[in-house]
Amino acid sequence: MSISTLRGYVSQINPPDRTAVERARFRLDGLAKPPGSLGRLEDIAATLAGISGEMFYDAGKRCVIIMSSDNGVVEEGVASAPQAVTYAQTVNFTRGITGVAAIAKQFNTDLIVVDVGINAEVDHPLVLNKKIRKSTWNIARRDAMTHDEAVQAILIGIETAENAVRNGYRLIGAGEMGIGNTTTSSAVLCGLTGLPAEDATGKGAGLKDEAYRHKIEVIQAALKRSKPDPEDPIDVLAKVGGFDIAALAGVFIGGAHMKVPVVIDGFISMVAALAAYKLSPLAKEYMFASHASGEQGFAHAASALGVTPCLNLNMRLGEGSGCPIMFAVIDAACAAMRGMGTFEQADIGEEYLNEIKGGGNFTVAKHPAAGGAGK
Amino acid sequence: MSISTLRGYVSQINPPDRTAVERARFRLDGLAKPPGSLGRLEDIAATLAGISGEMFYDAGKRCVIIMSSDNGVVEEGVASAPQAVTYAQTVNFTRGITGVAAIAKQFNTDLIVVDVGINAEVDHPLVLNKKIRKSTWNIARRDAMTHDEAVQAILIGIETAENAVRNGYRLIGAGEMGIGNTTTSSAVLCGLTGLPAEDATGKGAGLKDEAYRHKIEVIQAALKRSKPDPEDPIDVLAKVGGFDIAALAGVFIGGAHMKVPVVIDGFISMVAALAAYKLSPLAKEYMFASHASGEQGFAHAASALGVTPCLNLNMRLGEGSGCPIMFAVIDAACAAMRGMGTFEQADIGEEYLNEIKGGGNFTVAKHPAAGGAGK
Repeated sequence: MSISTLRGYVSQINPPDRTAVERARFRLDGLAKPPGSLGRLEDIAATLAGISGEMFYDAGKRCVIIMSSDNGVVEEGVASAPQAVTYAQTVNFTRGITGVAAIAKQFNTDLIVVDVGINAEVDHPLVLNKKIRKSTWNIARRDAMTHDEAVQAILIGIETAENAVRNGYRLIGAGEMGIGNTTTSSAVLCGLTGLPAEDATGKGAGLKDEAYRHKIEVIQAALKRSKPDPEDPIDVLAKVGGFDIAALAGVFIGGAHMKVPVVIDGFISMVAALAAYKLSPLAKEYMFASHASGEQGFAHAASALGVTPCLNLNMRLGEGSGCPIMFAVIDAACAAMRGMGTFEQADIGEEYLNEIKGGGNFTVAKHPAAGGAGK
Repeated sequence: MSISTLRGYVSQINPPDRTAVERARFRLDGLAKPPGSLGRLEDIAATLAGISGEMFYDAGKRCVIIMSSDNGVVEEGVASAPQAVTYAQTVNFTRGITGVAAIAKQFNTDLIVVDVGINAEVDHPLVLNKKIRKSTWNIARRDAMTHDEAVQAILIGIETAENAVRNGYRLIGAGEMGIGNTTTSSAVLCGLTGLPAEDATGKGAGLKDEAYRHKIEVIQAALKRSKPDPEDPIDVLAKVGGFDIAALAGVFIGGAHMKVPVVIDGFISMVAALAAYKLSPLAKEYMFASHASGEQGFAHAASALGVTPCLNLNMRLGEGSGCPIMFAVIDAACAAMRGMGTFEQADIGEEYLNEIKGGGNFTVAKHPAAGGAGK
């Protein structure tokens, strides 16, 4: 694991297949609807064509990769929950009882749970052990990790995403768990963009006003101490980030490298996507923003990355909880692309009407008054 | 069918069960997540509890009701597609090849297709014949329909929704098809709110600038001619509306009357929801906004109704095409409510960890490097 391995992955990301995008747009314009009237569903379908080179993307199997790790900065009192919650919720992912787990189950989405630095011994058959070490260091006092560790975390993310694709996953969500990681994400956002800490920092899981002001000061101190280089995302991640953010940045790069789209979840996921973009601008072509997180800083990160979420749910849970819902939006785009008729097919005369009186394979409810069920 | 029948339905709509809402909020606050961090998913779950009186809403079977009809105002050249498209697309719904049909199929959503005034003979086993007559009159020259016809259209909508609920549908979407119906919807929006036609009118399926200006003039002329009473939604619907809008308003009232939520689609659906709200403010408690339509006027209508869409897809197709996607958002809310653990359940110690090592019924992907698939 080294920087040259990472550079190898980054250099091998392909640009989207422009010809496939054009073919997709041509088909979309020929479907029986006012031009462009499916809006962003059309954009999604065209983007998927560019990613895969296929007109009809097979989005069958999907997962959320959850990077779990702890953050030394919680010593500063920047989080409203105790550090033990990182471990507890990581195990709860495997039990199916967290937010992302409950939602993922509804949407036939598997979870890939990775320990990249939880501050506890995790010996669990359903948690992938990729622990770099137990927790980062406290960014208020020293760098979160070494440069080599940051590279290692990114490579873990890349390889997790690549293995997921090898195992058949065609949609990947980028989730995380780590008490204190809105603090590190805000710091990374500032480090990458120059945004003031006041603008980049939110109340996380629910800080009171005084603790919130302290959180801003901690981020300011970390940035002042470490002076991360905005042109070097690895430097920013190492100095003020976390293993989870770095590994998620790797997930975006790994997905792009394997030509599979990666869905951004909330604030931490968005900051990781921004870091991935700074490492490899082409990785952005494989990203989909899901929902507009309620966490302050999210909008700045999305704007810096240049993406617009499709869902407006005021969620701020993290875990990847918004990704399965976005998979449904992608499903809608694929269904329209695949299932709609062209203008020619839709131009029905008498002969067509007779032909279809038998029914077809599409379920339309019978006359409700007839008392029969729809199916 | 009479105004007194309609008044009967309206007077029998129950307010939401406030106790059930409180119970739902209590449970939501006890789930293992930062309070309120599931945002609007929590609001949806609580609203469903209020609608049904049940903590866990059973949203199993779902449909989109599509009201199809023609509009006399197309004589004025306000639509970019020929009137025959109303009939063609109505048949295409049953063939599964329109936008809503393709998307509905993906989301296990049935279509209930209703002819409430198509300007053609429709003899099709999968199209419910509730035709009032062939097309409304041209609102530029005379009222679209009589007061009695408006009442009849609303009652058709109510009864269609009620029959759907009797047939087991637990989520209803409100869709439509009718060339010229963005013109009538803009006119109804102006009639109900006093909004100037310039603000309420968009380019529909794709008008050129000159035709767009003419469309605004037609709406202004219709309003000036008929002077609809903003306090009387039936008067507004009769004078400048359409059979489709009136029938959809009835769908919202029928769903509310039967305690089943109705999902608003795009501009026409939103205007129908606003008309239903003016008939019966309680009906709003059973409505969910789905997506923010790209059609001008939509935002004004949503604001007048006081609802905020969950999806930001720049869609402007109509047909109910956004409803099945919103059903997925509702599914996410129900899944979180039902599947998440409480803080107590999530507080894991050693004993718990041992207990769950066997796996449980939740699918978590195996270690990707192990080569096994997730399921």
